[in-house]
Amino acid sequence: MGVGGRGLHEWAFATSTFRRMFGQEGGSTGPDEDFAARSFENIGAWILGRNMFGPIRGPWPDETWKGWWGPNPPYHVPVFVLTHHARDSIVMEGGTTFHFVTDGIQAALERAKEAANGKDVRIGGGAATIRQFLRARLIDELHIAISPVLLGSGERLFTDLDMTKLGYRCVEHVGTEKATHVVLQLSNPPP
Amino acid sequence: MGVGGRGLHEWAFATSTFRRMFGQEGGSTGPDEDFAARSFENIGAWILGRNMFGPIRGPWPDETWKGWWGPNPPYHVPVFVLTHHARDSIVMEGGTTFHFVTDGIQAALERAKEAANGKDVRIGGGAATIRQFLRARLIDELHIAISPVLLGSGERLFTDLDMTKLGYRCVEHVGTEKATHVVLQLSNPPP
Repeated sequence: MGVGGRGLHEWAFATSTFRRMFGQEGGSTGPDEDFAARSFENIGAWILGRNMFGPIRGPWPDETWKGWWGPNPPYHVPVFVLTHHARDSIVMEGGTTFHFVTDGIQAALERAKEAANGKDVRIGGGAATIRQFLRARLIDELHIAISPVLLGSGERLFTDLDMTKLGYRCVEHVGTEKATHVVLQLSNPPP
Repeated sequence: MGVGGRGLHEWAFATSTFRRMFGQEGGSTGPDEDFAARSFENIGAWILGRNMFGPIRGPWPDETWKGWWGPNPPYHVPVFVLTHHARDSIVMEGGTTFHFVTDGIQAALERAKEAANGKDVRIGGGAATIRQFLRARLIDELHIAISPVLLGSGERLFTDLDMTKLGYRCVEHVGTEKATHVVLQLSNPPP
């Protein structure tokens, strides 16, 4: 996550949704928990940029790397990983299967929609992947958690995007002790 | 303020501090009001970038322009305006005097400090002015109100600044219905 990056997620780590995910009990309730829980509701497939899947760049040296999350990743549905380098799908424990998509975001979205079978497709990041989807107006709803942490440097989520012109507006805004939650929606999503 | 810019200040316009400033009664209490009130407490002088003072660029065509605020501006203390073009000071009603400083931010700060006579100096913006002072580590405390509004484009406050490396950290964070208030402080301010 980079230097200080963990601080961005403190609101999430404290929620009961995230604690349960890591086998722990207890955890916060309230808006932080509500947003954490919502973010996993009705998800039928995920899309991840390659850097979200792992640190390897360029061609896959072998089949060893299977993501950051161990044998039972927290997805439990098909996950489509954007990459320029083809690789066979990996069936993990607990319902997660990683598929590797080499023909771009539209193709990834089509395959993810089909796999989701009527449920939602969640774009898990990173920032460059989200920007690609936003620019193409393919994200209906975007949840952003703003944490009270200075990082000093990093990747800007909205660089070179005019979110207003693209048709996004802010429809929810809730502040908690640990974060400010903002929900952006596309006014006229494509069919 | 630019297209949609008024939306950035909705939290402020609703406060009793701002309403009183414009001769109106009532207004919000709570954190929005607390931050609005704090921002005017113990202020002995202001510093403004030239674009905050008016729309005129280049040499002053005449002495007509006296700021956006009418005959009795809401400062009531000396205000130092950064400019490349010298101009005589303007004494306004209610205690505000505009001084024009042509020799940079350090000079402006020295003059403002002297005028403030032990009270605080407030930098009123705009973004480029704030960035200059931040880069020079001359701002001890920075209040930022993040409004749930998408502007689409505009000037970035932190462009090319590594706030962590400069020594700033977040010391307060309060969310309200209308904004998220963040206070950044310099760890080791210069004497």
